[in-house]
Amino acid sequence: MSRAEPRVEAPPRVLTIGGSDSGGGAGVQADLKTMLALGVHGMSVITAITAQNSIGVQGCWVQPEEAIRAQFTSVVGDIGAQAIKTGMLANSALVAAVAELLSGLPRDVDIPVVVDPVGVSKHGDVLLADEALTMVRERLLPLATLVTPNLYEVSKLTGVEVRSDADLSDAAAAVAKLGPRWVLIKGGHLDGDAVDLLFDGQREYRFAAPRLDNRHTHGTGCTLSAAIAAYLARGYAMPAAVEAAKEYITEAIRGGFALGRGIGPVDHYWRWRRSSPTKMNYANHEQS
Amino acid sequence: MSRAEPRVEAPPRVLTIGGSDSGGGAGVQADLKTMLALGVHGMSVITAITAQNSIGVQGCWVQPEEAIRAQFTSVVGDIGAQAIKTGMLANSALVAAVAELLSGLPRDVDIPVVVDPVGVSKHGDVLLADEALTMVRERLLPLATLVTPNLYEVSKLTGVEVRSDADLSDAAAAVAKLGPRWVLIKGGHLDGDAVDLLFDGQREYRFAAPRLDNRHTHGTGCTLSAAIAAYLARGYAMPAAVEAAKEYITEAIRGGFALGRGIGPVDHYWRWRRSSPTKMNYANHEQS
Repeated sequence: MSRAEPRVEAPPRVLTIGGSDSGGGAGVQADLKTMLALGVHGMSVITAITAQNSIGVQGCWVQPEEAIRAQFTSVVGDIGAQAIKTGMLANSALVAAVAELLSGLPRDVDIPVVVDPVGVSKHGDVLLADEALTMVRERLLPLATLVTPNLYEVSKLTGVEVRSDADLSDAAAAVAKLGPRWVLIKGGHLDGDAVDLLFDGQREYRFAAPRLDNRHTHGTGCTLSAAIAAYLARGYAMPAAVEAAKEYITEAIRGGFALGRGIGPVDHYWRWRRSSPTKMNYANHEQS
Repeated sequence: MSRAEPRVEAPPRVLTIGGSDSGGGAGVQADLKTMLALGVHGMSVITAITAQNSIGVQGCWVQPEEAIRAQFTSVVGDIGAQAIKTGMLANSALVAAVAELLSGLPRDVDIPVVVDPVGVSKHGDVLLADEALTMVRERLLPLATLVTPNLYEVSKLTGVEVRSDADLSDAAAAVAKLGPRWVLIKGGHLDGDAVDLLFDGQREYRFAAPRLDNRHTHGTGCTLSAAIAAYLARGYAMPAAVEAAKEYITEAIRGGFALGRGIGPVDHYWRWRRSSPTKMNYANHEQS
């Protein structure tokens, strides 16, 4: 039987480079779920495997540099990507390797690179050593289309301490000096509404979202940066991509649910869960 | 500010134990996408990281046994699972370790275990050595609620060669003798309609689906077994879970798209892509 070409046009492809969260709420798991939810084809370069749950990180196995290079080359060399996101890069050698791989991307097409400079997790676990953050600052940020630090990461990257909304502009300017084309400062840890500041070196865009009464926010940072990458791959301009991604993460946080004894994940499925709740079939369960 | 418990009830949780496909079409990536699409919370124990694309597998990094144990313990000990699926277990030591972990699950609740005895990929790459298949037969299948071999895997597991539809019953009976509660023989490589045979040791259920004119089927086996696990977690009885999962994979194959130079993936997003095509914004692209 002949096998024709498919009827379906391929969706945009987005590559995430980061760590695996066994619990499924953060890391490449959150990224891949976000990408599916936003209609793009998600791919992944796994830098480290964590044993992780709602309580914290119980173990971490950093992958060899050659594994990172091989995964990247397999994906980019054959399938290609319309956007790339980096998350937890584990140590300074891997940050340097990823920066080198990104700087070798074809220059004839503009592939947006979103850098989430993952420094610390919700559980207080330090996910990237100071030494590696230095490498992020020096090697990775000059290649970034967008960097998305939270206030802790701003402090680590620039020394600027943000204590109120008024300090966000200073923070954005300080991060912008490190070389990324765009900066998104996530002010979510301040009091009041969650205000994020997007800055391109000249113009500021503010995105405010109501603070939600839900402690189950595991994966928030990963999900936001993955969503921005997905919208960029779909052709959105940066401000529109950030706005759309903020809407996605705000509703995902609203839908965050308890899992285990600690902090549960945001709900990547929120849009469909509301329109048609997951149909359960418990009546039949005994039969299986 | 007080942080109340969430408004959203947690969805069923499903754990996959398998390999990572950097290209995003198969392995734990396919499983996690399937689980999101079917409304359950996906989690993963990664046994091996592959560098993989539409052409084949370019590299494989098998993880240490302690990493598999730690990921499993983090997830099951804290979050728990309403269903578990196993995919590529890489080598006989990891098959034995996974069998031991599964046999240590709490006995007071019935957690369905779907075993996809991954033997060979679409590209012809052997994903599990003969020695490891022996371990699957002896240690893993007796613990399985369902095993989902294709005809190649049936031959490897039992010696039964299926040459036509009439041989499916013999194949199912031979696999059932190895100890799983249910057997699903995937007859998709035979001529004519794709017929799968579900067998519980007594009764046979046949599931026929039209053969689709699309060569982009990467991830079909992973997706089917993950979908069955998702529906079992949602409380479906086995025949209903298989029927629903067959519908999902049939439409995902219909939506399979070209990526790279080889075999593209099935479309995990098919249901939403049809109802509201991914909104592109290419008009804005220059602005970013």
